Amino acid sequence: MEAEQPARRPGGRTARVRAAVHEAVVDLLREEEWGDLSIALVAERSGVHQTTLYRRWGTLAALIDDVVTERLTRSSPVQDTGTLRGDLEAYAVQVAEDVASPLSAVFLRAAMVGTHAEGGEPPRQIYLLERGVQLQAMLDRARDRGENPPTLLELLEVVLAPLYFHVIFFNSPAGADHARGLVDRLLALTAST
Amino acid sequence: MEAEQPARRPGGRTARVRAAVHEAVVDLLREEEWGDLSIALVAERSGVHQTTLYRRWGTLAALIDDVVTERLTRSSPVQDTGTLRGDLEAYAVQVAEDVASPLSAVFLRAAMVGTHAEGGEPPRQIYLLERGVQLQAMLDRARDRGENPPTLLELLEVVLAPLYFHVIFFNSPAGADHARGLVDRLLALTAST
Repeated sequence: MEAEQPARRPGGRTARVRAAVHEAVVDLLREEEWGDLSIALVAERSGVHQTTLYRRWGTLAALIDDVVTERLTRSSPVQDTGTLRGDLEAYAVQVAEDVASPLSAVFLRAAMVGTHAEGGEPPRQIYLLERGVQLQAMLDRARDRGENPPTLLELLEVVLAPLYFHVIFFNSPAGADHARGLVDRLLALTAST
Repeated sequence: MEAEQPARRPGGRTARVRAAVHEAVVDLLREEEWGDLSIALVAERSGVHQTTLYRRWGTLAALIDDVVTERLTRSSPVQDTGTLRGDLEAYAVQVAEDVASPLSAVFLRAAMVGTHAEGGEPPRQIYLLERGVQLQAMLDRARDRGENPPTLLELLEVVLAPLYFHVIFFNSPAGADHARGLVDRLLALTAST
């Protein structure tokens, strides 16, 4: 009952199944009430057997986490512009754009719900772990160039936290200019220490 | 079918009904999967008629929002210690404690879900509005004393956002010392401008 595949993707059958399942989850997250989402619905939409979904992801929460992590990581690669300010601004503006997409708000909320619903590991931590490694590399590059970078925690707290805060609590993304202002604030903090 | 009331509360019948319903929601949020929560369950648990619940709150989302807003507002009143630093530290430490309670994480997530599920106004905005008025009064007091307070947005971004970020993304509350460190950061920023 493995139905027709969507457009062929690189990476063989395993990758194609993952892509089809992810696509189905994204569609369903857009369309359905949280409470209605289920492995059965994902199976129906993706044409991938429930058994395969359970074997591969275990739970709906784990599947949602996988989708959220993959999307968030893919959506904003960390650039190497040659300066700390350039890197930070590129990153902050990218995040500001990413969180402004309606789907991103969906993902953020999915991350909250998925985790609670079945007690899995929070996807946000996996995401932060992967992203944290990239950001730490950005900060290390700055130090190697003789710049005075903030710590990773300072970067997350001063730049990333407000960008998410605007979306989650104000329901209104901060925008690129505001993101650059947060980078100014971060650099002012490290300059004064 | 209005069943027996819990312990008598001040404020008359309307306030008692609200208290009973809020208590039922809090209990159910602790016990149930998000998707299982319903007006019918709240009616059953609180002993308050579904008709009353629909008339008073309209939707499950609006009811959850009311509970979340009331709890968050009640849980951390803004103090008047006589100095800006004292007020900010009292507030930051209080928030750090509040968000560390398991129920607070439940509320945060309920806020996310409730809003999405039925398209109501985000309770976070109502909360921030009420709380914003109190915090603005704190900042105005400081200015009246001749101190140089930050803006409300700076306070929310530099202190509040990281405290929530730790809970939502690290799944680990920041603690009182860290909260005081955030106040130091905020005051350093305003001192340098």
